[in-house]
Amino acid sequence: MARINVPLGNRAYDVEISAGAIDALDRHILPFARGGRLLWITDSNLVAPYRQRIEAQCRAANIEPHFHVIPAGEGSKSWQELERLTDWLLDKGVERKDHIVALGGGVIGDITGFAAAIVKRGCGFVQIPTSLLAQVDSSVGGKTAINNRAGKNLVGAFHQPSFVLIDPLMLSTLPDREMRAGYAEVVKYGLIDDPEFFRWCAENGPQVLDREPAALEHAIAHSIRSKARIVGADERETQDVRALLNLGHTFGHALEAETGFGDALLHGEAVGAGMAMAFRYSARLGLCSDAEARRVTGHLAAIGLPTTLADCGITASGQRLVAHMLHDKKMDGGTLPFLLARGIGQTFMARDVQLEDVAQFLDLSEIRGE
Amino acid sequence: MARINVPLGNRAYDVEISAGAIDALDRHILPFARGGRLLWITDSNLVAPYRQRIEAQCRAANIEPHFHVIPAGEGSKSWQELERLTDWLLDKGVERKDHIVALGGGVIGDITGFAAAIVKRGCGFVQIPTSLLAQVDSSVGGKTAINNRAGKNLVGAFHQPSFVLIDPLMLSTLPDREMRAGYAEVVKYGLIDDPEFFRWCAENGPQVLDREPAALEHAIAHSIRSKARIVGADERETQDVRALLNLGHTFGHALEAETGFGDALLHGEAVGAGMAMAFRYSARLGLCSDAEARRVTGHLAAIGLPTTLADCGITASGQRLVAHMLHDKKMDGGTLPFLLARGIGQTFMARDVQLEDVAQFLDLSEIRGE
Repeated sequence: MARINVPLGNRAYDVEISAGAIDALDRHILPFARGGRLLWITDSNLVAPYRQRIEAQCRAANIEPHFHVIPAGEGSKSWQELERLTDWLLDKGVERKDHIVALGGGVIGDITGFAAAIVKRGCGFVQIPTSLLAQVDSSVGGKTAINNRAGKNLVGAFHQPSFVLIDPLMLSTLPDREMRAGYAEVVKYGLIDDPEFFRWCAENGPQVLDREPAALEHAIAHSIRSKARIVGADERETQDVRALLNLGHTFGHALEAETGFGDALLHGEAVGAGMAMAFRYSARLGLCSDAEARRVTGHLAAIGLPTTLADCGITASGQRLVAHMLHDKKMDGGTLPFLLARGIGQTFMARDVQLEDVAQFLDLSEIRGE
Repeated sequence: MARINVPLGNRAYDVEISAGAIDALDRHILPFARGGRLLWITDSNLVAPYRQRIEAQCRAANIEPHFHVIPAGEGSKSWQELERLTDWLLDKGVERKDHIVALGGGVIGDITGFAAAIVKRGCGFVQIPTSLLAQVDSSVGGKTAINNRAGKNLVGAFHQPSFVLIDPLMLSTLPDREMRAGYAEVVKYGLIDDPEFFRWCAENGPQVLDREPAALEHAIAHSIRSKARIVGADERETQDVRALLNLGHTFGHALEAETGFGDALLHGEAVGAGMAMAFRYSARLGLCSDAEARRVTGHLAAIGLPTTLADCGITASGQRLVAHMLHDKKMDGGTLPFLLARGIGQTFMARDVQLEDVAQFLDLSEIRGE
């Protein structure tokens, strides 16, 4: 059991990591029904395993359980589902003192948090993340969003939850591939500014993926502590602090765009490959040693994450991938802000990266993996 | 010329009231294009009188003018127009450092401010209100919203503008009826907590409606000063301070709901009648004198605002009107929070108003005006 505070002044809140917590809601979640109501949002995959267990606990506490179910999958982060969800909340007469509970992975957390931000200009909400990626990253920090035709997460709000409840036992049924994808975001915290934690990951990664309880809980708690510290220092990403959490995401975005943002390459897999590329590109620029870049790539590959374009199923040219990075941005003098590293745990924001050079790098046979 | 600060810490901003300002954009608005771009949002009625004048000033300053036009009318505060607007902004590659300019009345200000709040999780925006109601009320304070099927302004955000530019000369073409509707919100500031200003209104109201420059500018500036003070004390309406701005709105909401939220009864007209009713109901409860209630009703009627149900074209029973007030709320022990007054300038939040009694009050022939 660990309880971690996200230090955000009058928007501060706790994250509790507690095995079996989903069956002890009276300790954590049901007290939020004292001042208002609980409105549960989940997805079509999670209804079967959890709805009855939750309803039974609510009824035992004399709390009416209200459930709204959203189709599972990234396609639900849409205007249409957002309108449906807010309509449902308003039909229920949601008030600002109520708490909307997001029970699910990143998709449910993102759309529910956004709906909570905008119904009646802001209602309370609580996160119960059910995927490793959501448990170590997206459920904490208040970034909420939907996708629009121009791209992912382009419409949203900063809206902090009142509480985050993480039950590592809920990961027991998560597919191994999604465990690995979430694990990429765990390793990320070591690579950003915590070399000691990277060493821990290199030794304990396999146990985390095997869901060995002590290793899994340590990985989650350490990740949340890092995220809480970074978000506390730069809630709205107006400095270059919170931006560090995007390590691997610029390369990763290009990989996801090329593979269609779908099951062909999961977000966490793209981030894993993107981090490997960010370190190898840093080594190419002489910022960090080849040995460190090899340690990063070696660990990610050993875990089973993709680290080359071939691993990602991508044959596109470096030029084409760089075009994805530019997205709708103007090619500002041929450079783009880019997270690079001077070593493991020494990530920084570089502002002078030449995109032409990045394209050439992506055409190297070592990176292509061909 | 008056410049008024809205004191909100790191979200503080100025409101400038300046006749002819729309033709001197280089002094106020165009400087916002230094750090980013300006993206203009307006409605189909305002394109003809203003677009060319604005484009000419932008071009003279070497600034590219980008315009998005929304159909005039309350129907545009919809999910559909919000999606269109955010799509347009994102297609333009909007960044958080850009400024979105809301040129219009309350509809344009509300939907534009909401879009600015959610694209890229929050971009800069500037208000140039063009109706009296928007100039004295809705453009200041950061309340933004769209309507949904359950009601008005139920989906939105608190998002403060960076600047509000008010040009009283833009009111010269506003229909007299909309001037009167906006004037109801001016009188409101006197009724809430400023008896001196109510006396000024009673003397100078006709000159304000005639758009006599000094009276009009004084009315606007005094209203904004009041609103800035109240919003500064309670930005998110979590105490009972900002709620005072809703004087007349509970009765008014019932009147608008009964008449279909349309041209049959404008929002400001409903607020005017609602304030008259709130004072007469306060007198019925012995909270304020009959004489004070008559002064309020007399001034509003003299201006040409409705003060009885018949004036509003309403024949519905008191019971039916009270049902509109309840809306989707549960009848919490038969009471509703209600703004009442102990006299002119002595508005307060009452929590023990009996709805059955309100229904009987609305059936009095004096209130029905029949």
